[in-house]
Amino acid sequence: MQAPNRGWEPFAFLCYNSYIMAKKVPQLLKGFRDFGPVQMEGRLFMLAKIRRAFERFGFSPMETPALEYAETLTGKYGAEEKLMYKFADNGGRNVAMRYDLTVPLARFYAANRNDLPKPFKRYAIGPVWRAENPQAGRYREFYQCDVDAVGSESALSDAESIAAIATALTDLGIKEVSIRVNNRKILDGLLTIVGIPTKKHVAAIRILDKQDKLPEKEVRRLLGEFIASGNQVDQLFEHLGFKAASGKELQDAFLEVEDQNKFLSEGVGELSDVLDALLELGVKGVTVDLKLARGLDYYTGTVCEVSLSKLPEIGSIAGGGRYDNLISDFVGAQTPAVGMSIGIDRLIYALEELNLISYDEKQDVIIFNLDQKFASRYLELATKLRSAGISTDIYYQTEAMDKQFKYAEKKKNNLAIIIGEDEMQKGVATVKNLATRKQSQVKIESLAKEIQLLLK
Amino acid sequence: MQAPNRGWEPFAFLCYNSYIMAKKVPQLLKGFRDFGPVQMEGRLFMLAKIRRAFERFGFSPMETPALEYAETLTGKYGAEEKLMYKFADNGGRNVAMRYDLTVPLARFYAANRNDLPKPFKRYAIGPVWRAENPQAGRYREFYQCDVDAVGSESALSDAESIAAIATALTDLGIKEVSIRVNNRKILDGLLTIVGIPTKKHVAAIRILDKQDKLPEKEVRRLLGEFIASGNQVDQLFEHLGFKAASGKELQDAFLEVEDQNKFLSEGVGELSDVLDALLELGVKGVTVDLKLARGLDYYTGTVCEVSLSKLPEIGSIAGGGRYDNLISDFVGAQTPAVGMSIGIDRLIYALEELNLISYDEKQDVIIFNLDQKFASRYLELATKLRSAGISTDIYYQTEAMDKQFKYAEKKKNNLAIIIGEDEMQKGVATVKNLATRKQSQVKIESLAKEIQLLLK
Repeated sequence: MQAPNRGWEPFAFLCYNSYIMAKKVPQLLKGFRDFGPVQMEGRLFMLAKIRRAFERFGFSPMETPALEYAETLTGKYGAEEKLMYKFADNGGRNVAMRYDLTVPLARFYAANRNDLPKPFKRYAIGPVWRAENPQAGRYREFYQCDVDAVGSESALSDAESIAAIATALTDLGIKEVSIRVNNRKILDGLLTIVGIPTKKHVAAIRILDKQDKLPEKEVRRLLGEFIASGNQVDQLFEHLGFKAASGKELQDAFLEVEDQNKFLSEGVGELSDVLDALLELGVKGVTVDLKLARGLDYYTGTVCEVSLSKLPEIGSIAGGGRYDNLISDFVGAQTPAVGMSIGIDRLIYALEELNLISYDEKQDVIIFNLDQKFASRYLELATKLRSAGISTDIYYQTEAMDKQFKYAEKKKNNLAIIIGEDEMQKGVATVKNLATRKQSQVKIESLAKEIQLLLK
Repeated sequence: MQAPNRGWEPFAFLCYNSYIMAKKVPQLLKGFRDFGPVQMEGRLFMLAKIRRAFERFGFSPMETPALEYAETLTGKYGAEEKLMYKFADNGGRNVAMRYDLTVPLARFYAANRNDLPKPFKRYAIGPVWRAENPQAGRYREFYQCDVDAVGSESALSDAESIAAIATALTDLGIKEVSIRVNNRKILDGLLTIVGIPTKKHVAAIRILDKQDKLPEKEVRRLLGEFIASGNQVDQLFEHLGFKAASGKELQDAFLEVEDQNKFLSEGVGELSDVLDALLELGVKGVTVDLKLARGLDYYTGTVCEVSLSKLPEIGSIAGGGRYDNLISDFVGAQTPAVGMSIGIDRLIYALEELNLISYDEKQDVIIFNLDQKFASRYLELATKLRSAGISTDIYYQTEAMDKQFKYAEKKKNNLAIIIGEDEMQKGVATVKNLATRKQSQVKIESLAKEIQLLLK
């Protein structure tokens, strides 16, 4: 592009520039992201592995709309709910964008429960929208990958949800995970035992949930200020310090206090069964963390959070638990449910840090364009290679070779196929490996076979 | 659940029912859909095939957000634009939900063009939102699958976009497609030649675009009423009747009129090149249809529509064309572009009608739960099978066998693994094919291998 060449050139140049500026390049919305080809390759690689792991555990795929009636979603998430994207549509309906994948599952289950297998085990992968204050690693649109089992009270379903997540992480090459588990009933029971009234339990659990962000001293101070006496807080923390990695250890730890409260003994029994099932499923890295609460209000039993032993600083990359009342509210009948969710933004960051994304799985070919008169031969050849399953690009115009090489490098093609006048006469193609710069000549008629060998 | 059993039982029953009714089961929004496991299997099968075909043609994956600044999207689509979901977000920004995948591509390209290969060939698969009046086959949320090449004027890029779509359809097992192509410049040129002033061309093209919905007589009448004299309309339709399946045939047909108008001769040249390239790429079923216009305002050259020869009644299942000005408007510099889009709702309907979806690709296994005391053995076994790549479900509770069989049937598991007291003592499992009802006994230790053989 050239500025007009006149006597008043500098001024014209300014005008021309401001004309360009006036054509404002439209922006991405704050907190939203584009994913270009390189990022997408990593994401697709990761999502395919996760999908396959979920399917191996017998979860089936499901998808619900981006938009729901606002009243379907509101009143489920607690204080965070103000972050929901809500608006009135053209027909005056109050609608909201999906805030998670769990509440839409509850709506779906309520409407279709008579036709669904029981328990209904589904996985869902897709974006959700929350108007968070944008900050490093927080976005307003992000993918969740969820497994949920609706309709079973069995501890096996809790354990299998956790195991499906752990297996997905293993399949991705992650070797060491830390899986912390707890049971909301244990927390409730302990709070009761030390004498904190039921109506203060939700507030107390919200304070305990801050343990990963605040030092224990500060959590104790907050509890002392808003919930309980110093003595009660001391007693509570004594119990919360119990350690266990198996059902037996957990039950031993609680032997003396368990019978003091029905919720407590139920919670210990349930968590103990989950621990045992996780051991039998071969899940590694599981520990009981009695301080683990999780923020959302709807959990009723098992809660779980997963982080990476090698990258503790990124926080939890998966979590979930049992929510026996959420779906019941829609269905009007007791409907237990349990589920786990992977947040893939932190996960992909982790995979990159740990060098676990194999971007180079994609192997392909570009046919250079040396002479427009050979275009029809290039096209025929491309069709042959594609029919043999080889990803094949063609450079559309006859241009300088350095331009074509530059294009090939940006596209990360592995092999360039060069056929000019000379090659055409001999019926051969020069095949050049763009990484090693090695090249060889191959008969055009056997090119597909040769390339399949080279790409192996 | 039971109604309370009192003297005024009928009345109580009514009350109880109305209590249930009051717990209103939340509804899907009108025009939106859930996809349960069976539908999802078909959709995932289809999308994977399409994705793979696009990649074989050298298109790379890309994804943009669901939300954009409203001003990015508005003013691009013509009269239909009133169907856009627009609202003010919590920060007071005017935002809109993605209306297609093309305008977000233009925004992305404008912002990133210096880092992208040129031409930039990308594919995108994802939902778009339009507040259409819901009717059979029309939804407010639907997936598009797009290929676009930005930055090339070459007729090869038009042909390759069309060929990528045709190949995706072939890969899905569709044998006969009808691919109609035209060039907007030919339409423009012919309208000029018969004496219709330029300012009326857009309106004329919109009327011509109705040819699939209205009889020719009616299209002629509308043109006569709003655009041109009867004589002009006759002249126009004489030219519009030209048939051609190759570049040579097209040029022969236009030999006498081509030189009367610059746009016409350009259009004939371009379309001729596209036809030849399609032949060389081995694309079947291509015909020139000079009446083909396509509704969207932004097309500037090639236009194309694809339908299925065996199911003409469902209309076009893919379409697209060249739009050399849309991206230029964002970039501020000449930026040619061409693309094609598959609408997967009509496609999946077609695949179902033509029996081309292999739902049965999914083969898996369920371990029945005959005795809770064997739970740990079932879990261990499940882990072994899953590690061998076999999708394996476990029935969580010990329940009557008919319940477990019913679950297995609803889940479409292929093989049931039955291990009770008897089998456990002998160290074997009964493996039952749920379709054929045949069963055999297999040693537990070699179960994974045996099942892999059975599932082949």
